[in-house]
Amino acid sequence: MPTADHGSRRAALRAVLAERGVDALLVTDLLNIRYLTGFTGSNAALVVDARDAEGAEDRTVICTDGRYVIQVGEQVPDLRALIDRSSAPALVRMLTADPGIRVGFESHVVTVDALSGWQSVAPDLDFVRTPGCVERLRMVKDEHEVSLLRRACASADLALAVLVERGGLRPGRTEREVGRELEFLMLEHGADGISFETIVATGANSAVPHHRPTDAVLAAGDFVKLDFGATVEGYHSDMTRTYVLGSAADWQRDVYDLVARAQAAGRAALAPGVEVASVDAAARSVIEDAGYGELFVHGLGHGVGLEIHEAPGIGKLGTGTLLAGAAVTVEPGVYFSGRGGVRIEDTLVVREQEPELLTLTSKDLAIV
Amino acid sequence: MPTADHGSRRAALRAVLAERGVDALLVTDLLNIRYLTGFTGSNAALVVDARDAEGAEDRTVICTDGRYVIQVGEQVPDLRALIDRSSAPALVRMLTADPGIRVGFESHVVTVDALSGWQSVAPDLDFVRTPGCVERLRMVKDEHEVSLLRRACASADLALAVLVERGGLRPGRTEREVGRELEFLMLEHGADGISFETIVATGANSAVPHHRPTDAVLAAGDFVKLDFGATVEGYHSDMTRTYVLGSAADWQRDVYDLVARAQAAGRAALAPGVEVASVDAAARSVIEDAGYGELFVHGLGHGVGLEIHEAPGIGKLGTGTLLAGAAVTVEPGVYFSGRGGVRIEDTLVVREQEPELLTLTSKDLAIV
Repeated sequence: MPTADHGSRRAALRAVLAERGVDALLVTDLLNIRYLTGFTGSNAALVVDARDAEGAEDRTVICTDGRYVIQVGEQVPDLRALIDRSSAPALVRMLTADPGIRVGFESHVVTVDALSGWQSVAPDLDFVRTPGCVERLRMVKDEHEVSLLRRACASADLALAVLVERGGLRPGRTEREVGRELEFLMLEHGADGISFETIVATGANSAVPHHRPTDAVLAAGDFVKLDFGATVEGYHSDMTRTYVLGSAADWQRDVYDLVARAQAAGRAALAPGVEVASVDAAARSVIEDAGYGELFVHGLGHGVGLEIHEAPGIGKLGTGTLLAGAAVTVEPGVYFSGRGGVRIEDTLVVREQEPELLTLTSKDLAIV
Repeated sequence: MPTADHGSRRAALRAVLAERGVDALLVTDLLNIRYLTGFTGSNAALVVDARDAEGAEDRTVICTDGRYVIQVGEQVPDLRALIDRSSAPALVRMLTADPGIRVGFESHVVTVDALSGWQSVAPDLDFVRTPGCVERLRMVKDEHEVSLLRRACASADLALAVLVERGGLRPGRTEREVGRELEFLMLEHGADGISFETIVATGANSAVPHHRPTDAVLAAGDFVKLDFGATVEGYHSDMTRTYVLGSAADWQRDVYDLVARAQAAGRAALAPGVEVASVDAAARSVIEDAGYGELFVHGLGHGVGLEIHEAPGIGKLGTGTLLAGAAVTVEPGVYFSGRGGVRIEDTLVVREQEPELLTLTSKDLAIV
């Protein structure tokens, strides 16, 4: 399996920082810190110096608190570590040794109060809004990241297969029971954790796009919608399948077929250089042409990685184009309020040739 | 069981807003929105109008997107709902109808970029930094909240009892297996979810305060430290117990006894009106007097509720006093690097008389 190369990620970031005209980036988003260093603690800040390639790594410093002295040494052996409970202010104080330095910061995650605090610690530092620098890199997954996503998706596939095979989706069980079993099966089959609270929605509940499991009981004739995922080393899988219990009515076959065709069209549209809005349109137009456009009430998909929702968003109003190596979901849905709904979702990686499908569970209509 | 009274919480907030001199609060923190309205979706903003008590509820508006049309109607039947994907900007736009209004915002969670976006939507609105208004209310739990915390703690107590009783803590198992089973048992016994990634740390790993479970194998003579919790309707429990496998060495008995005495001293110090720093000192001085002060590397505790860590922080540098109804943890630890450590933690509610203990598992040294 490929290994994580945090040094290369920091080198790529330095190129971005040079473009933005800053001397260093103060990174405070914990997932961005994890991406750039491997550190997984709950308190950290990081200064990535970008002034000259030669000495930049030596001036790149991570800060965390006393709880993580051992952990930071193990996870980040290649960087200098400062131990201070107020991690970002401590690094800001360190930066004041270099008057005149232009310090980029993550203005999309830094709060109004935090910035104000830094400015009072270092009134002479030039803080520059540089949102999304690391997220931009994170959009394109390296092969180490793809291998973790593949394992996360495999865990979810396997858990669902075991659940269905052992009759876990049978009338009389509650949504909650099914969700709990599915989560346990993921953890039994390679997951470190679950991606998000598992959605199990039966009957009319399946028309609620983000229904949370209740004590509602599965009944013959219901749609049962399962939207769930596993995490492996911080990387998230995301998959939705919709089943019918017992036997399918004609309207259920029709709506399932429609959503499946839209989903296939969305998948087929994934390619480097394609506008995200046109990927959304490829799937949405199938549903609109059938006259149900208003019942597809959300975007087509989103990036996945260290977060369950990350860039790029794939929706009607999305901007930008897909890059090779982006990991995204494709998840159209049609929801008949009070009656039931279908969503079908895969996680895929955009490739130069055709997209790589990571969630391998069949999408044929399954009557269980 | 007492029921949630969101209207009373909003009324209490209005009194705080009047003190701060603002006409309305734009709430964007999702947990604060949940606390004030009951809404649990992943996209929302809320304007709590505070101008006159009479019409204030009518001018209080929640905004969410199309995915949550049904859910917001069910969960927030008592407020007007606006449907817009850009929830906060939509409410800012609504507020421009009232020129001259002073709008408080959560400057401790609102990002630099978000504020800048609102200011460009509404250049004439007067945005006032009002951090922590809702968190201040959330520190004191009402009886509905305490009943949920009690259920969350009971789930964790029961899961641990079952784990120990069935021999789940035996040499040869991995930390990961134990963690997974403990989490499954909580879900089987009343938990909606887990509070945070369960810490299972055996042998030398128990000296790492926030160790994450690995494939390390439990062995006779090890300390095994378990730090874990359950959630019920969003409320978190938090408990740590440390066991010894097989038989305890003298140094293990000594350090366990020391931490247990410190923990008891910390619990005994909990009372309304007491400075949080003196609660920390009550426990810390026991460990310092034994000569191990440097090995207690973290604060004594923290508030728990809708977040696993919330106000008040109970540490050396903490400020402020405890209020009756605050739910907090007391969790001293002593860690011998490379050898092993002990932490003992309870969740309690500060009461006028003695504190109410919510985590009921015995704290006597248990050799399993």
